[in-house]
Amino acid sequence: MRVFDASQAARDRVLDDVAGRLADLKGVGLIDDADAILSRVEVCDDMAAVIEGAKYVQESVPERVPLKQEVSRQISELLGPETVVGSSTSGIPASAFTEDLQNRDRFLVAHPVNPPYLVPVVEVAPAPWTDPASVETAMTVMRDVGQSPILVRREIEGFILNRLQGVLLREAWALLEEGYASADDIDKTVREGLGLRWSFIGPFETIDLNAPGGVREYAEVLGPLYHSIDASRSDPEPWSEALIAKAEAEMRAKIPAEGLEERRNWRDRRLMALAAHKKSQER
Amino acid sequence: MRVFDASQAARDRVLDDVAGRLADLKGVGLIDDADAILSRVEVCDDMAAVIEGAKYVQESVPERVPLKQEVSRQISELLGPETVVGSSTSGIPASAFTEDLQNRDRFLVAHPVNPPYLVPVVEVAPAPWTDPASVETAMTVMRDVGQSPILVRREIEGFILNRLQGVLLREAWALLEEGYASADDIDKTVREGLGLRWSFIGPFETIDLNAPGGVREYAEVLGPLYHSIDASRSDPEPWSEALIAKAEAEMRAKIPAEGLEERRNWRDRRLMALAAHKKSQER
Repeated sequence: MRVFDASQAARDRVLDDVAGRLADLKGVGLIDDADAILSRVEVCDDMAAVIEGAKYVQESVPERVPLKQEVSRQISELLGPETVVGSSTSGIPASAFTEDLQNRDRFLVAHPVNPPYLVPVVEVAPAPWTDPASVETAMTVMRDVGQSPILVRREIEGFILNRLQGVLLREAWALLEEGYASADDIDKTVREGLGLRWSFIGPFETIDLNAPGGVREYAEVLGPLYHSIDASRSDPEPWSEALIAKAEAEMRAKIPAEGLEERRNWRDRRLMALAAHKKSQER
Repeated sequence: MRVFDASQAARDRVLDDVAGRLADLKGVGLIDDADAILSRVEVCDDMAAVIEGAKYVQESVPERVPLKQEVSRQISELLGPETVVGSSTSGIPASAFTEDLQNRDRFLVAHPVNPPYLVPVVEVAPAPWTDPASVETAMTVMRDVGQSPILVRREIEGFILNRLQGVLLREAWALLEEGYASADDIDKTVREGLGLRWSFIGPFETIDLNAPGGVREYAEVLGPLYHSIDASRSDPEPWSEALIAKAEAEMRAKIPAEGLEERRNWRDRRLMALAAHKKSQER
């Protein structure tokens, strides 16, 4: 695996960063031989070297359309005849930055979730002009490196993951705004309730197992309740300044701003332990 | 703890059922002394005996308003002056079946999630006339038995948990209906992505940790994207027969109807292992 970054400082950090994370993964038993993995990572000093002969390129520049356009153009000109390019973006469709490329049939979105080495899902989202063979290559590469790719069959704002997160967040913010529950009680409803099943079966399988007759019976019995809930939120408002301030006050009372970085490290340790737990269950 | 059911057959099963689940819990190290716990469970042959002298009564009859009204009236007439009554319901507000009771200030909803001994959250939702002291009793009892109660401050359809589940399901069904992804890929987006963090931090803490400046920065940067996603779903449709059939076909291709019961047992074993994992992390 070859890595390139336009910043020399970033390039200088890569191997140390990777070595640190490999040590963590080894610590929880998720990998055996950290050195063997590290020896496969090569940092390159220019973009041509990183792309030459590659089967697959993952582009991960910041999420600004003009920048994605410019970097995709540079990659396009260096691209061999078989190479496929996936872009790390949680919100910009591939059609927004690949339309004018000569080999645009080999560009698509491959949206990983942070941190990708602990969260397996990758959303593979082709543009209308992406070759199905390029999609297949991206899906296969992702499976081969141990990720769990899903296929977003047509472009849609927010892809799948952020749409699902977005609608849940919207309801969470609305319940907070209207005073039905505190932010922490809403969080608790998920972390001590809904989120448990969702960490190993998704929303469809959850309801499929929640009625004797499966998803059909569940939908027939509970559909009217859910439709009524949905209909009560038919006029979405943007999150207001007052509402953001309310959430911020509650979150900062729980963890002050200066504690966020340590809490992020704790989250990553928990994600790593959860990954090890899930692996032990799936054996 | 005392238990009563109107059905003799149900009463005859209670101790065996509890013993079986205690054995499972002991198997994964979640409890030490199953016999000591079992010896505290007493099955009563009439409702008066189960209520007499109790600090707290959990009523768990099926979710039909007339039945809840009738059983609540029976409980009300047997209730000592200090006893609080919580009703297991995922959808019926306490005001729908307690309005005419003489001691309605001691009735509320306490909504557990199946299976309650593996999913800690309990939604405590008072009616407008519930005494705050009764709410406090219910919250304390739930904490004392190892559950995680949350307070639903005012009555709302679906309480918190099913509202959050409902909006995510609605988007999942819509994405399936419009062909953006398969049901299994939507499930995978949650079980290999969103659901991992949500199993130990909720939606607010997730976004609070996902921007350097916390929830405020996240909301300011990503609010417009989420509002745009929400606005694209402003006219909810009921789940159609054709859509239910589509989901059912995919789910039954994965697990046939005759395999659902075994899959539910697998889910409960996974939930139990996850509970043991979370306990080990929280030490």
